[in-house]
Amino acid sequence: MLRANADFYRAFAARDMALMDSVWAESAPVACIHPGWAPLTERTAVLESWQRILANPDQPPLECLQPRAFVHGETAFVLCYEKVGGDLLVATNLFLRERGRWRLAHHQSGPVAEIPAPPGPGARLH
Amino acid sequence: MLRANADFYRAFAARDMALMDSVWAESAPVACIHPGWAPLTERTAVLESWQRILANPDQPPLECLQPRAFVHGETAFVLCYEKVGGDLLVATNLFLRERGRWRLAHHQSGPVAEIPAPPGPGARLH
Repeated sequence: MLRANADFYRAFAARDMALMDSVWAESAPVACIHPGWAPLTERTAVLESWQRILANPDQPPLECLQPRAFVHGETAFVLCYEKVGGDLLVATNLFLRERGRWRLAHHQSGPVAEIPAPPGPGARLH
Repeated sequence: MLRANADFYRAFAARDMALMDSVWAESAPVACIHPGWAPLTERTAVLESWQRILANPDQPPLECLQPRAFVHGETAFVLCYEKVGGDLLVATNLFLRERGRWRLAHHQSGPVAEIPAPPGPGARLH
């Protein structure tokens, strides 16, 4: 399941618009909230925004950190951090299963203060 | 479907922790990204965060604006704006259907610059 999420970030890193297109859902509704932007809806508008981002020579690389998948039947969401230039973001990627394949239906990314340190050997989770 | 979303904001407005508890999913995974925070996962941690927020006397009221629902089978996400004091946020609320009832599985809210004006009479959508 995290492979579909990795494909999304691989498309970004490689500026591969064909891969980016194939990542997004075909039959499910599609939407996207870039950091600070109003939501984009409709597949065409979402893909156009990614085309502009990937074509922008000033776009810094984006690193996906600590992706965690939460799966419930044919629906899954991945939470991860995104390091973009000097900025740190936190993202939700919502995937739906279409004909046996996980496709991205919605992405929201927004600023986060920091990535919390993982619990150390003496830490208590509960 | 938007009724479940309205219940979430009604629980917030009324500081009604019992309603807030009933809004969130029981069997699906639960997560929440408050603005600027790292993701909270596990139902208990998410509900505890809402308890602290609702119990905080300095918490300004929150207004949900322009909710739009995107439904795909037993999965739906609502995109809306949130006006909190002087801040404007944009949110994703992910709902999954549990025993015939829409329950909230994930919420992410983050800053947005402005709410775009709706298209005027002479505006073109395409």
